[in-house]
Amino acid sequence: MSTLYGNAIVGQSGGPSSAINATLAGIIRGACADMGVHIKKLYGMHHGIVGLMRGDVINLTDIFFKDGIIDLEGLESLSLTPAAALGSCRKKLPAPGDEDEELVMEAIFRQLSELDIKYFFYIGGNDSMDTVAKLSEYARKKDIAINFVGVPKTIDNDLVGMDHTPGYGSAAKYIATTVGEIIRDTAVYVDPAVTIVEIMGRDAGWLTAASALGRIVTGQAPDFVYLPERSFDMQRFFSDVEAALATHPNVVIAVSEGLQFADGKYVGEATQSSAVDVFGHKYLAGTAKALEIAVREKFGCKVRSVELSLPQRCAAHLLSAQDIEEALATGARSVRAAIEGATGIIMTIHRITDSTSGYAYDIGYEDISLIANRTKYVGDSFINAEGNNVTDECLNYILPLIRGERFPRYVGGLPTQFIF
Amino acid sequence: MSTLYGNAIVGQSGGPSSAINATLAGIIRGACADMGVHIKKLYGMHHGIVGLMRGDVINLTDIFFKDGIIDLEGLESLSLTPAAALGSCRKKLPAPGDEDEELVMEAIFRQLSELDIKYFFYIGGNDSMDTVAKLSEYARKKDIAINFVGVPKTIDNDLVGMDHTPGYGSAAKYIATTVGEIIRDTAVYVDPAVTIVEIMGRDAGWLTAASALGRIVTGQAPDFVYLPERSFDMQRFFSDVEAALATHPNVVIAVSEGLQFADGKYVGEATQSSAVDVFGHKYLAGTAKALEIAVREKFGCKVRSVELSLPQRCAAHLLSAQDIEEALATGARSVRAAIEGATGIIMTIHRITDSTSGYAYDIGYEDISLIANRTKYVGDSFINAEGNNVTDECLNYILPLIRGERFPRYVGGLPTQFIF
Repeated sequence: MSTLYGNAIVGQSGGPSSAINATLAGIIRGACADMGVHIKKLYGMHHGIVGLMRGDVINLTDIFFKDGIIDLEGLESLSLTPAAALGSCRKKLPAPGDEDEELVMEAIFRQLSELDIKYFFYIGGNDSMDTVAKLSEYARKKDIAINFVGVPKTIDNDLVGMDHTPGYGSAAKYIATTVGEIIRDTAVYVDPAVTIVEIMGRDAGWLTAASALGRIVTGQAPDFVYLPERSFDMQRFFSDVEAALATHPNVVIAVSEGLQFADGKYVGEATQSSAVDVFGHKYLAGTAKALEIAVREKFGCKVRSVELSLPQRCAAHLLSAQDIEEALATGARSVRAAIEGATGIIMTIHRITDSTSGYAYDIGYEDISLIANRTKYVGDSFINAEGNNVTDECLNYILPLIRGERFPRYVGGLPTQFIF
Repeated sequence: MSTLYGNAIVGQSGGPSSAINATLAGIIRGACADMGVHIKKLYGMHHGIVGLMRGDVINLTDIFFKDGIIDLEGLESLSLTPAAALGSCRKKLPAPGDEDEELVMEAIFRQLSELDIKYFFYIGGNDSMDTVAKLSEYARKKDIAINFVGVPKTIDNDLVGMDHTPGYGSAAKYIATTVGEIIRDTAVYVDPAVTIVEIMGRDAGWLTAASALGRIVTGQAPDFVYLPERSFDMQRFFSDVEAALATHPNVVIAVSEGLQFADGKYVGEATQSSAVDVFGHKYLAGTAKALEIAVREKFGCKVRSVELSLPQRCAAHLLSAQDIEEALATGARSVRAAIEGATGIIMTIHRITDSTSGYAYDIGYEDISLIANRTKYVGDSFINAEGNNVTDECLNYILPLIRGERFPRYVGGLPTQFIF
């Protein structure tokens, strides 16, 4: 742990979210508050480390900190803008010992040296934390004095070592709201119909679980919720659908895009692209569509599939106030951790019990090597015994994270967005 | 034209929308205001005329009008609730001379007689107006004294004889907002990628046109917008995509679900269900998916398709204040028209020029036989010469209709809905 004096740089990486810019705004605010003490200037990488390697950076201090005054209005607008405002990337760094490790690492550290970077902030999910872990480990080995801090962001909520991730609350709020509206929409007809809603989350079912929130708030929740944490069994699924259709005409089912059969085959495999992304993840599509076809063949009733798709991670017109607050706070706190000398860390959010609201949070940090490249799954106590829904314990975990509404400023009927 | 004394009844029919309950609230308010003068009670049909034929009606007066006081809070909540709160149907009435005409009509008029109905309000789109036209014509022939009033509602905005329809403004606002967010989301990466967004609108391109609103408000609009009013040409489409990819990596395209080639085949036909609905419309799905496959084969780049799907007609968490105001006003005005003796009519909204805001509206009505079963298409001056986008004149037509925001009341992080 050492205290350094120089410039700072921040990048955004991985899939965008509705809260990733609030975290960026928090880091900018934290850096401006320190300005001249440890940090001289704050740079932003365009498109993460891919941009950094090309020297494609902008001076954020120039934009948000003029004559000693922080542009709070600009930061507010940035906070409520969806999708990585600095641009993102999905670059996987070579592992120690890989053929091209030295080449890539030298290119990155040359840029960092030229910019006199002492503090490095990287906002992202699981894969982005792998980048921070590799960079900080390389710096440690080479005795390079830069503090590397990972700042969590993922709608997937699948990082270990923390209660939840910024970005999850807003996505969960959007999903619960939209599924509630779809249930309402499908309820207007009397003829038997099954609606299958597909929700993001390749490995972990946190987002799909959020579709059930209406059950303890508005009374409107899907009949069944299938998470990727349980093997999917088509016969049990048919039994579930049959039982529901016997009691009411409009059956709504939420499914994770990542549902797999017991043999490991994806439910959506029939309509799946063979492409894999650079981290080797299979690109999935069509779980709901595959089930739509199966239910229509089996029951002969009206069946519809709906993919909530991209709006789950970019619908900034409906943000969780709690999520945005925590994203900002985590960003600001990460600057403090870095200037206090921490490196090779990831910021974490912990849940503490508050006597008034029952929920409060605290921000800390953890050794990033303990967290990167691991997945936090929905726990057993959050899934019912039948494996076709979530428990109230699960919903009570999610509920505080969707509290409160933040809306962007509207001009001419449309939400405004911050553009660099 | 005759003035009658008795009960009134209201039903909702066809596809739900985010504003159809505001129209219902307007009718309830109009009826309560008249209560005891011409109207004794206001009934609501459960699931439109299908429910009416079974005698499945509820007494709305009992719910919203107690001791001479109108439940304004309840009506407000109803106004901001998506999807037909009374339930809907897609029943097509037999045409005059059809074998079952007498049977069906007698069943309906028997119920109306038993309930002592003198005023009949039916909220819906094109197909629902066909119902109103047939009922009023039958009553005229049989000399039955009931005033029949159609109240327009369709997100499709495809009714002739009026400037626009309630429901369109909120759907247009949701589409423009969501497409703007998707554009933002796709812009974070530097690799060439094409995103194709599929928008509702079987015959007319009004909803798809709304995706371009960002062009004159926030600067964020799709590169191309293809409406069903123009034949779709795959080679011209490939040329458009190629030209766009040559200037920027992230190309976003909005397409109508109803796009057809010059020979009349639907673009989405490959993935289309063979089912037709009761009005004989083909059920379409997969226009964007079909184009996604074509673009991937042609260009080999990353391609993604997004169907905005059901939320287009039920996303009541983002309503146009202008739309909700007009829906309420149209409902209330329809009661006045009916008690003044009009029958066989449909309410209409006309645009007038206001010296301050440039936009004002006026509500009138028209002979329903002139309007039912016809489709209002996007006009030539609203589509560019290349047939791959809309004109500013088109956007200036839509813009006043998305003005202002109405949000539902949130409890525990989720929007509340009115439930009968």
